Amino acid sequence: MTIPKDDNPLENKSLYGVSPALADEIESALNSNNFTIVQGLIEGLHAADVADLMKGLSADHRRVFIEAIKTTLDPEILAELEDTIRKDALEVLDTQEIAEAVSDLESDDALDLIEDLEEDQKQEVLSAIPAVERAILEEVMTYPEESAGRLMQREMVCVPTFWTVTEAIAFIRSNEELPENFYTIYVVDPRHHPIGEIPLSKLLQYKGDKAVSDIMNTDLHQIPVTKDQEEVAALFQHYGLVSAPVVDPSGRIVGMITVDDVVSVIEEEAEEDIMLMAKVSESDFNAPVLTASYMRIRWLVITLVNTLLAAFVISQFQDSIKKITALSFLMTINAAMGGNAGMQVVTIVVRALATRSLREGDTWRAITKEILVGFVTGSFFSFILGGIAILWLQDIHLGIILSTAIICNILWAAFAGTLFPIIIHKMGLDPALSAGPLLTTTTDVLGYAVFLGLATAFLM
Amino acid sequence: MTIPKDDNPLENKSLYGVSPALADEIESALNSNNFTIVQGLIEGLHAADVADLMKGLSADHRRVFIEAIKTTLDPEILAELEDTIRKDALEVLDTQEIAEAVSDLESDDALDLIEDLEEDQKQEVLSAIPAVERAILEEVMTYPEESAGRLMQREMVCVPTFWTVTEAIAFIRSNEELPENFYTIYVVDPRHHPIGEIPLSKLLQYKGDKAVSDIMNTDLHQIPVTKDQEEVAALFQHYGLVSAPVVDPSGRIVGMITVDDVVSVIEEEAEEDIMLMAKVSESDFNAPVLTASYMRIRWLVITLVNTLLAAFVISQFQDSIKKITALSFLMTINAAMGGNAGMQVVTIVVRALATRSLREGDTWRAITKEILVGFVTGSFFSFILGGIAILWLQDIHLGIILSTAIICNILWAAFAGTLFPIIIHKMGLDPALSAGPLLTTTTDVLGYAVFLGLATAFLM
Repeated sequence: MTIPKDDNPLENKSLYGVSPALADEIESALNSNNFTIVQGLIEGLHAADVADLMKGLSADHRRVFIEAIKTTLDPEILAELEDTIRKDALEVLDTQEIAEAVSDLESDDALDLIEDLEEDQKQEVLSAIPAVERAILEEVMTYPEESAGRLMQREMVCVPTFWTVTEAIAFIRSNEELPENFYTIYVVDPRHHPIGEIPLSKLLQYKGDKAVSDIMNTDLHQIPVTKDQEEVAALFQHYGLVSAPVVDPSGRIVGMITVDDVVSVIEEEAEEDIMLMAKVSESDFNAPVLTASYMRIRWLVITLVNTLLAAFVISQFQDSIKKITALSFLMTINAAMGGNAGMQVVTIVVRALATRSLREGDTWRAITKEILVGFVTGSFFSFILGGIAILWLQDIHLGIILSTAIICNILWAAFAGTLFPIIIHKMGLDPALSAGPLLTTTTDVLGYAVFLGLATAFLM
Repeated sequence: MTIPKDDNPLENKSLYGVSPALADEIESALNSNNFTIVQGLIEGLHAADVADLMKGLSADHRRVFIEAIKTTLDPEILAELEDTIRKDALEVLDTQEIAEAVSDLESDDALDLIEDLEEDQKQEVLSAIPAVERAILEEVMTYPEESAGRLMQREMVCVPTFWTVTEAIAFIRSNEELPENFYTIYVVDPRHHPIGEIPLSKLLQYKGDKAVSDIMNTDLHQIPVTKDQEEVAALFQHYGLVSAPVVDPSGRIVGMITVDDVVSVIEEEAEEDIMLMAKVSESDFNAPVLTASYMRIRWLVITLVNTLLAAFVISQFQDSIKKITALSFLMTINAAMGGNAGMQVVTIVVRALATRSLREGDTWRAITKEILVGFVTGSFFSFILGGIAILWLQDIHLGIILSTAIICNILWAAFAGTLFPIIIHKMGLDPALSAGPLLTTTTDVLGYAVFLGLATAFLM
């Protein structure tokens, strides 16, 4: 059921979420502490919409909201919440309430919830849930974070090679423990190694007496259970997969990953790159002011070191600046051009690494190309800005020095902007880390040093 | 079939792509112009892997490669190529060869291909393909770019309400024109309006005599055919959908979108944000040097204007800098802190808008919060950097002026960094546009003006 929003035609309506009118009604019910009205208003809403609604509430309202709905709480709502909001929500619930939510959820969502708890509460919750579910959760927790094992679902349909289409369909029909969503069944050998897959749409197209081994697709993409989720997402994107089997080190099938699990990974990984490049540790949009400030300050400390270094370099040329004060503003032009050109290069290279457009062995080709691009770009701006300096200051020497410094700095930006992410990637770190701080420190320091150095050498 | 790569255990292997050894073999076959060997080597490879391989070739090798495989060309390979590489590939093929590829491909891929052609070749190709397919392509071209209509597939399974499960399955079994992948069938009324959906996994769970109308899910998320693809992706992510029906303005079902179509949109949109924020128009990693240079220069012109403005502001304070040359390096500290703090704010706000964490009506709350964060962050750095300046230069006045300027600039960055993306979003433009240029121009100009202005007012 979609919530009616306004009188606009379908085209202008948002495809999802709650209407501002409903949000207002809920806020006023929260103001008057009327729990029954709140419960009534959110009845029938999708968990994702309730989570969305909670994002829009103030921290105080959010507490009251959880109090209001906790007796009828749909655990899916907790699963849909962002980390920072979920932590707030969990504080309102007691151990028993959290344990119930955990045992209702699918294992990946249950785990997210448990991992948001403090260590001692985590133990309490784990001991309050049924033994079977606890065992499953504890097994999943043995897989590395962000691995295929954490992403997969354990429920799936596996059939032996000698079955027919009719037998497979009858099995699905009689099986009570089916996954909520599945698009593919797996054909396994007696040791439970996957040897083929049949999409449901294909299963439906064959006559009943056909053997599953005759119609299965043997071109399987098996995923080791410890594989990093980013690799898994790349695999799905590369081949346009809908689901893939996950195997343990002995080759036994232990679960499957479906494309809808992968969607959130892709979003997460791109988000991570964006945040790292802008020097924000994570999206703190819903974090409290002090937490957000702390996260921002941590990264800005790098800028602080960077800018102090640059300031120190400039301070070495005080005498030159005193003689020709025009140096004080021309030098900022050179630093800015180098920094921005470098940011472009780094971004392109970081994304090329993330999307696997840039492979090992391509390093020198990439650097050569970027240096050529840097040469064209640098020559262009060197000419323009040198010309502007000459016209502005009526001083041909300053113009030539600025021109030379600009082309040097942009060439350096091209070289270092390509090499830094590749080296950081080879070290096993996230190349997006290198984007801002490292590179701009060098373009700033070099930018000031080369320009002021040339000016001092030739004009003093 | 996966290509064996090395002797490492499964865990260390790449999950996809071709081995460097195979790539080397192909390169040497290309060097000796041996087309038969090239054809043999790529036989059985997935189109995505061949496309991947082509990315790694030099421009010249790529031409030879296309020549070598064009007689046996799998059109899917063209569909998998990146834009810049595909354009090169299409130049090697003649109109008839392109027309054959276009008619073999599904409509969305066919369209991508056609849109890479020059206008006159586009017309030639269109007239060379069969009338029915041409009509479909021409209809799809009437939908706006990046709309649901471009993303959807027209092939799907629709059944009337009065059918039973047996009838639906029999229909699927006898239908020759089924989509390659589908996970859901749609139940439609006599006017062909969708009124329910049944996932295949659910269809398989019911006895044959059950009516489809009894088991269908009526909680449909209908997508208008002109809806923007970004909204569609957000809808899929929000509700975790696997497929959704697309309807025309009269409410008739015209196609369906499946989650695998959405995966590439999510990737594209995140990529777009990253590229825009770093002031690169698109990933030009595989573009020729001159094209890449042109794209970079276009954006760097903004930096040029920005930095000239800042330089002009500084030039107005020549006399002050001549008297106290320390101003020339302290001023860069202030500009850098403001610019970087602003970049953090903008990134958080742009992503909050993209992921719909920030809704209309939240503007003032967001600004208030960011100003508070700016106040905490600004006070911290104001204190530290003011202290450093005092110790370094043994001048308490300069330290106090730097402190004041830093807090002003970071507060401005918080305010403008929140407001700019929101205003640009309200104007219907991409908020990521505002990230770098606009904001850093203001933090630079203000940073220099406030610091040098205060110094001039109080110290001269």
